[in-house]
Amino acid sequence: MIKMDEKIFEELAELFGAFSDPSRLQIISVLSDGEMNVSAIAEAVGLTESATSHQLRNLRQLRLVRKHKEGRQVFYALDDEHIKGLYQFGLDHILHKRD
Amino acid sequence: MIKMDEKIFEELAELFGAFSDPSRLQIISVLSDGEMNVSAIAEAVGLTESATSHQLRNLRQLRLVRKHKEGRQVFYALDDEHIKGLYQFGLDHILHKRD
Repeated sequence: MIKMDEKIFEELAELFGAFSDPSRLQIISVLSDGEMNVSAIAEAVGLTESATSHQLRNLRQLRLVRKHKEGRQVFYALDDEHIKGLYQFGLDHILHKRD
Repeated sequence: MIKMDEKIFEELAELFGAFSDPSRLQIISVLSDGEMNVSAIAEAVGLTESATSHQLRNLRQLRLVRKHKEGRQVFYALDDEHIKGLYQFGLDHILHKRD
């Protein structure tokens, strides 16, 4: 086992806490297929653009999502491969328990 | 993307919520090396046996940990490989962000 200080467990608890919201998870699910703009995300999750923007701001603050510009377009993507991995592992666990 | 109902996102949010506690994570960290009895877990995480038993009950209710008996001994283990995977992915993300 890696020797770890308590600070790491606190950061880790925060990270998992960031995933513990159904709306955030729905957006993460959509973005795990690739980057998208706000309109496309809003349509995929069935929220208004305004509500989607609000959730995206949250997700960026929690460092689960990042954005970048291409010309006038703004795209959102999962912050890194770990975010997709975490989401996917969680989902596999739930689906496995259902079988 | 797999087509999913809202129920799955709620279950998933609960699962991640179960991971969002530093003490629980510390026990998960210890058990990711293999099964152990209460005394060994208590020693590894620096809690009393009574406090450790309490946390283990929580973890079992949240289905992150399971127990089995060998003679008079009771051993605790992570519920399945997904639990270890989730913990490890989260940890990798935190350590990666620190670099």
